[in-house]
Amino acid sequence: MARPFHHPAEADVTLDAVLHALSDATRRSIVAKLIESGGMNCGQSCGDLPPSTISHHHRILRESGLILSERRGVAVFNSVRRALIDRRFPGLLAAILPPPPATPSRSSLS
Amino acid sequence: MARPFHHPAEADVTLDAVLHALSDATRRSIVAKLIESGGMNCGQSCGDLPPSTISHHHRILRESGLILSERRGVAVFNSVRRALIDRRFPGLLAAILPPPPATPSRSSLS
Repeated sequence: MARPFHHPAEADVTLDAVLHALSDATRRSIVAKLIESGGMNCGQSCGDLPPSTISHHHRILRESGLILSERRGVAVFNSVRRALIDRRFPGLLAAILPPPPATPSRSSLS
Repeated sequence: MARPFHHPAEADVTLDAVLHALSDATRRSIVAKLIESGGMNCGQSCGDLPPSTISHHHRILRESGLILSERRGVAVFNSVRRALIDRRFPGLLAAILPPPPATPSRSSLS
């Protein structure tokens, strides 16, 4: 049987761990995709990375408190603990993640 | 003769390195003190830490692009490259650093 995931309680979520987790471009990309999609299965959010790398990045995100992982059958569904992070560190995700690609326009690139 | 300090050019400052540098509470405290004071000598901003630890933290901050270190006689004066960081990562320092202790009041703790 698969081991249960460990998620830190809100009081145990530290800025050290959250910033460390977000100090990697791949992990920021995962978080951005999870926010944009409202959550997705492990693998969908990582492109062509090897499974061990995907697992590693999700573990660091989960243990920092940034994401919630839930087993759904044989898959693992991940979502960002957005409310928790916004309560603990207001403005942080908005400052770190790229804005969602809602209405791409040339002028926004200038 | 002391080695010159290396400071990355603005284009070489990465969010990975800046977030890594800020993922340590001691380094965040140094940055907060440097912003509050407008800059200070190495050592003034670190309390009672050993010199090698002070030097280590300042090196990580400097190499990430967060601070500027200048030799002034035998001392080293450090300041935050605030304009650069605010241009590259708007809102980041405000989201990460504690607000300055300007007017402490009980109500702000509730």
